[in-house]
Amino acid sequence: MPVVVRNTPRTDLALVDALAELGSATVHEAQGRTGLLHHRLRPIYRPARIAGNALTCTVAPGDNWTIHVAVEQAQPGDILVVTPTSPCDDGYLGDLLAESLRAHGVRGLVIDAGVRDAATLTDMQFPVWAKAICAQGTVKETPGDCQVPIVIAGVDVRPGDVIVADDDGVVRVRREDAAAVLEKAQAREANEASKRARLAAGELGLDIYSMRERLAEKGLRYVDYDEQP
Amino acid sequence: MPVVVRNTPRTDLALVDALAELGSATVHEAQGRTGLLHHRLRPIYRPARIAGNALTCTVAPGDNWTIHVAVEQAQPGDILVVTPTSPCDDGYLGDLLAESLRAHGVRGLVIDAGVRDAATLTDMQFPVWAKAICAQGTVKETPGDCQVPIVIAGVDVRPGDVIVADDDGVVRVRREDAAAVLEKAQAREANEASKRARLAAGELGLDIYSMRERLAEKGLRYVDYDEQP
Amino acid sequence: MPVVVRNTPRTDLALVDALAELGSATVHEAQGRTGLLHHRLRPIYRPARIAGNALTCTVAPGDNWTIHVAVEQAQPGDILVVTPTSPCDDGYLGDLLAESLRAHGVRGLVIDAGVRDAATLTDMQFPVWAKAICAQGTVKETPGDCQVPIVIAGVDVRPGDVIVADDDGVVRVRREDAAAVLEKAQAREANEASKRARLAAGELGLDIYSMRERLAEKGLRYVDYDEQP
Amino acid sequence: MPVVVRNTPRTDLALVDALAELGSATVHEAQGRTGLLHHRLRPIYRPARIAGNALTCTVAPGDNWTIHVAVEQAQPGDILVVTPTSPCDDGYLGDLLAESLRAHGVRGLVIDAGVRDAATLTDMQFPVWAKAICAQGTVKETPGDCQVPIVIAGVDVRPGDVIVADDDGVVRVRREDAAAVLEKAQAREANEASKRARLAAGELGLDIYSMRERLAEKGLRYVDYDEQP
Amino acid sequence: MPVVVRNTPRTDLALVDALAELGSATVHEAQGRTGLLHHRLRPIYRPARIAGNALTCTVAPGDNWTIHVAVEQAQPGDILVVTPTSPCDDGYLGDLLAESLRAHGVRGLVIDAGVRDAATLTDMQFPVWAKAICAQGTVKETPGDCQVPIVIAGVDVRPGDVIVADDDGVVRVRREDAAAVLEKAQAREANEASKRARLAAGELGLDIYSMRERLAEKGLRYVDYDEQP
Amino acid sequence: MPVVVRNTPRTDLALVDALAELGSATVHEAQGRTGLLHHRLRPIYRPARIAGNALTCTVAPGDNWTIHVAVEQAQPGDILVVTPTSPCDDGYLGDLLAESLRAHGVRGLVIDAGVRDAATLTDMQFPVWAKAICAQGTVKETPGDCQVPIVIAGVDVRPGDVIVADDDGVVRVRREDAAAVLEKAQAREANEASKRARLAAGELGLDIYSMRERLAEKGLRYVDYDEQP
Repeated sequence: MPVVVRNTPRTDLALVDALAELGSATVHEAQGRTGLLHHRLRPIYRPARIAGNALTCTVAPGDNWTIHVAVEQAQPGDILVVTPTSPCDDGYLGDLLAESLRAHGVRGLVIDAGVRDAATLTDMQFPVWAKAICAQGTVKETPGDCQVPIVIAGVDVRPGDVIVADDDGVVRVRREDAAAVLEKAQAREANEASKRARLAAGELGLDIYSMRERLAEKGLRYVDYDEQP
Repeated sequence: MPVVVRNTPRTDLALVDALAELGSATVHEAQGRTGLLHHRLRPIYRPARIAGNALTCTVAPGDNWTIHVAVEQAQPGDILVVTPTSPCDDGYLGDLLAESLRAHGVRGLVIDAGVRDAATLTDMQFPVWAKAICAQGTVKETPGDCQVPIVIAGVDVRPGDVIVADDDGVVRVRREDAAAVLEKAQAREANEASKRARLAAGELGLDIYSMRERLAEKGLRYVDYDEQP
Repeated sequence: MPVVVRNTPRTDLALVDALAELGSATVHEAQGRTGLLHHRLRPIYRPARIAGNALTCTVAPGDNWTIHVAVEQAQPGDILVVTPTSPCDDGYLGDLLAESLRAHGVRGLVIDAGVRDAATLTDMQFPVWAKAICAQGTVKETPGDCQVPIVIAGVDVRPGDVIVADDDGVVRVRREDAAAVLEKAQAREANEASKRARLAAGELGLDIYSMRERLAEKGLRYVDYDEQP
Repeated sequence: MPVVVRNTPRTDLALVDALAELGSATVHEAQGRTGLLHHRLRPIYRPARIAGNALTCTVAPGDNWTIHVAVEQAQPGDILVVTPTSPCDDGYLGDLLAESLRAHGVRGLVIDAGVRDAATLTDMQFPVWAKAICAQGTVKETPGDCQVPIVIAGVDVRPGDVIVADDDGVVRVRREDAAAVLEKAQAREANEASKRARLAAGELGLDIYSMRERLAEKGLRYVDYDEQP
Repeated sequence: MPVVVRNTPRTDLALVDALAELGSATVHEAQGRTGLLHHRLRPIYRPARIAGNALTCTVAPGDNWTIHVAVEQAQPGDILVVTPTSPCDDGYLGDLLAESLRAHGVRGLVIDAGVRDAATLTDMQFPVWAKAICAQGTVKETPGDCQVPIVIAGVDVRPGDVIVADDDGVVRVRREDAAAVLEKAQAREANEASKRARLAAGELGLDIYSMRERLAEKGLRYVDYDEQP
Repeated sequence: MPVVVRNTPRTDLALVDALAELGSATVHEAQGRTGLLHHRLRPIYRPARIAGNALTCTVAPGDNWTIHVAVEQAQPGDILVVTPTSPCDDGYLGDLLAESLRAHGVRGLVIDAGVRDAATLTDMQFPVWAKAICAQGTVKETPGDCQVPIVIAGVDVRPGDVIVADDDGVVRVRREDAAAVLEKAQAREANEASKRARLAAGELGLDIYSMRERLAEKGLRYVDYDEQP
């Protein structure tokens, strides 16, 4: 039987917003290269970068009824995260539902299925990460679950986990890890800034990261083109 | 034996142009969610929105000869609709053929295969919905049919059927249904405008569409996070 | 055992730059429709058009160590060409490595795998042709080969072969063929300019290319819509 | 509104059965290489070879209700041909429905979606051509159409058209063409038998089909390995 | 840092074995159509049907080191369940590892990647559900985790959850639900047996399941072929 | 202009036949994990295992003319290796061409495209590794090259290189490397036999391959389920 869970916990938006600054690749590295959704989910326009609390739901194939149910559970700072119960590329959301989500403070949509009204969503600057853009509409016959733990594009997401989404993809940070991941990601980024300057100046990663000895141990040989056998 | 059918009927361009205003998703809904080409056909640039009379042809894999034949059959307001006789991603059309089509009033191309010269086509603003962008050229050895009924990307299209194409995809409206579909689509859009305002103001779809009772009948339950088993 | 070949030959940059002007589709035709990489390699932003000398390397799946090795072998005018030893979509290169490559004169990247930091790469205007955009990072455990002949996306590429890449895809010109291919491509383009004007003026390809007789020999028939059986 | 069309015409089973003897490849050639469904439809076990009258229906994604409706319309010698209204890989049919179809004389299933109970279907020798084998079940909420013209896997099929399916794929023969196609296919097969004997004896296709002159006209050159430049 | 969790709980093998009798489709239905792995995981030979306790691990792309670690954690009745940290089709397991797993009582392998030595695995009757068969070997440089909760092919699996795998696919039953799911699945199967007999005797599902009234409510109409407009 | 190269060198069939004994996975490992064709090429029936000298050709999309040309160049012990000049799944070869190839001593076919007459090819036990089984036939309008170096499914193959193909895939051994690769592969297999016995007896790979220390260096930790945080 379908269920809606109310009053689920959320992550502090200060943490969420700080994670948005860092982007999906840095956050993904900072949490041990875990939590990345499959890259078949692409932004429908670029550039786009948001973070928010996961507002989760499941939907039947070709049936978007649950999204209407989800709107009522939304809070400002949420990102709607939708996974179909079997693979489907139909256009689950159009501009009307986007207006409704926005009116309730939802920052964007992550869906392992399709959306439509792509031109209007772009004009509205309502960011969406989806598997497809598809004009095919949906019915309202089979409700799914809302605000339950789900698996989407290879990653388990619970309500209130943090979603960080940008041009590189979508990553999930567990609610209880958000503060620690933020700290590591910020440290990582600080470290990258100095590296970037040295690399831009022509220093080699081989030297900056002291790779030459280990490469030699792995057997890497240098030969001259004219001296090859 | 390959055949070209001349003097095929077309749909009144007033109807065609009015359908273009409404877009593929609305038109698709208005005709009972039928006629949508598979979403693997994507616009090569966005935004793009056109409608036109289908000028149909079939092509052999890796052979674009029939497109030259089709140009002669073109009339202002047509959209060239090309389906290969077996799946192929080669670049069937480049900027020269686009110039030729445009000179004869053709508004764009829908092809279940590839095109090339994407940068020039974009500069020209000659809209194309294709399965691939691919520099691979084609030969001229095997003519196909022109202005015959075809199946493209899952949909049967006859010469003079209306093609509506935009960022959401490509939909076919049968010639004899165009007036009725236009009427329904316009009614649908008028209805959507008022809904959009209410949703943007924060009203819930659950209430606007009176969904709560039917959801309860389907067994949807609400539980509190802290009261879950 | 992994190997780096030093002092490989390169193609004269005057030839390289002239090929860039012509674009991948024209160059591909000019060399007998050979050398085109599979169109799954797409530019991460458009428009983009470059040519350069191939700086080749192989990488293990999920391991970008060799790219650091490759930077040291780079010369101005190179394009880094990377093929994984088994299919992988991970993000092998981000903005730091792009800075490093740029600092050594590398004009862009062609990779049959993924990249990340797409937004920054776009801001930097560092052009990349890749199979995927993916935030998933890589390890540094298994070195591959650098500046050896490779096969990438269906094409064999040797160090110093010319790579021409634009919105239509990526084509390889063998070093020893570069001058001859350039000449043919320029002749082809000159010929196209006059054709373009005639086609834009409404002349038919059927007449310009004298196709009617040969089409008739192939059995092409014209029938009137009202006279069909 | 969904519709069931009753008392649709069928093709004489003598014709149908004779076409089954010839197989999909020969029939496809005999009707001018048309009518072949996309090869993503594969037999769930091999070998399998049937022909029958198309009993058509459309189904909503994830919803197999219409198949129950179709059983009542079945006649001995039919093949059930099912196309979803948007792409879906769910398991629409299991062994119970197969028992029901068989009880009404249906010879097999062609579906551009998934099936389940593959082991039992194989034991029963109930042949199925499908896009997927998938345990995912379906709901019964949205009826589709039955015995109407459909498009499946790139081909338009009307009720009573002939379906020929074997290890090479599925081909549709229009009802009105069945007799003529049978005649051509039988002539083709007779011709192949003598060719097969000559080829098996070592005669070359180059000679049997008199290809040498035409190949030379196309520019084919023979060079010796040791005399290559 | 990679981790191995020892002494994880398992499900009683009596329950496990009873679930194997029922098969993936019935079990999937019985637990509310949840827990089904994506159907890209296919058995490398058919028929095959097993159930067992999940012995989980993650592997780096192109690196099967963790499988050696997993063998030590195996207990009789386990099924090894392997998910790569990014998509990869390499052949992670061959006949040697299969011998090792079998020696420790492992009943089979479920892997969202490739395997090799398919002919020997078939001869051994060591069942494998995999995404690919691929001769490409792997390295041993980067250990993953063993006996931790994972996500594989869209489903979260914990050590000791039940895996049921057959020709229709792979389904996961949570350890704590195994007894209840078994009961429901057995009830479901008992019900199916009587239905099968009635359907095989020619009774219609329309009548057995009392569908006619509800179909009429949904608007299903019956028309005669000759009376269509 | 298309070309046929005559009198190309071949590898000694004693070497070839010895490589067939070892299989694709072992040979692939023995030559440093190189030369493996993409696993999209699958045997059309299993089990199948052959080795032979590559008889190479290129074909235009949807055009199998060159295969007739290739038959004349065949020698006993050859395997026909066919790559299309752009991706195509059509059925390039049927049973007649297989008869012809067999009559000239060809042992099988490797093709990065489709074949047809799968049932007859299976009955004949003419082994084929292909990307698709597809009834779609081909034309004879555009000759390709024969006995030239080609790239197929990611690997460069020259006439007379050794092709080893079995249920795990297809691997290419360069002619000049065949003897050395054979020696390494035989050594590898001898080593595997003793390992297999130890593993089957329950010894752990962790111990046989002395992995424990290196795993600890990589940070692998063991924790007890009940002691996890």
